[in-house]
Amino acid sequence: MQRNHRGAVSLAEKFATFDQAFAPRRVAHVNDFVVKVIKVRGAFVWHRHEATDELFLVHRGTMTVRYRDRDVVLNAGELHVVPRGVEHMTLADATCEVLAFEPVATVNTGDAGGALTAHDEPFV
Amino acid sequence: MQRNHRGAVSLAEKFATFDQAFAPRRVAHVNDFVVKVIKVRGAFVWHRHEATDELFLVHRGTMTVRYRDRDVVLNAGELHVVPRGVEHMTLADATCEVLAFEPVATVNTGDAGGALTAHDEPFV
Repeated sequence: MQRNHRGAVSLAEKFATFDQAFAPRRVAHVNDFVVKVIKVRGAFVWHRHEATDELFLVHRGTMTVRYRDRDVVLNAGELHVVPRGVEHMTLADATCEVLAFEPVATVNTGDAGGALTAHDEPFV
Repeated sequence: MQRNHRGAVSLAEKFATFDQAFAPRRVAHVNDFVVKVIKVRGAFVWHRHEATDELFLVHRGTMTVRYRDRDVVLNAGELHVVPRGVEHMTLADATCEVLAFEPVATVNTGDAGGALTAHDEPFV
């Protein structure tokens, strides 16, 4: 499995390779962590990751990280860490380009599963 | 020790809190990894991290990751992973605002040590 590119990785170029919402692509690995690029558009499913935190960093656009008791709105150049074990979902009206940083073994839908679960996200 | 902010973290705001070159600040933790903001200006020391990869993502400006046999130039919105065990240094003519992802235990100067070694980087 490819781990990393030898040169500079342009996030804009990587985001241009796909349009599907909530279909993460891998762009780099850092030890047992992976950097994914995700297009958030519409609403994801409620879920939690029992064993891991999850970082989101917005590259372009605006998204919301929704918790049961509050919303965190993220614009370009803003990041937020979802604490392990806390139920959340992501949503965006228009396409939002987002970087995620999490352990390689993390499943995007956490404990929820279902149709939006990603398998073997391609390396782009 | 503070781990994470409850809301959105603006990278621009965090970079505005300091000016010192090669003096990392922590902005978030993801499990045992840390996200640091660094201003690269001038040339760092040659060093390697035996046990860990290190990710750099340029927020603003241009920097070079120099290896013994090649340079990788990074502009805003570009990232690069320095493989573990490989000697490298970072440099920039003008201030470059950079995000780094690496294990909490990583020492910025790796095996080299010296005056530029950062201790207990503050959380901003």
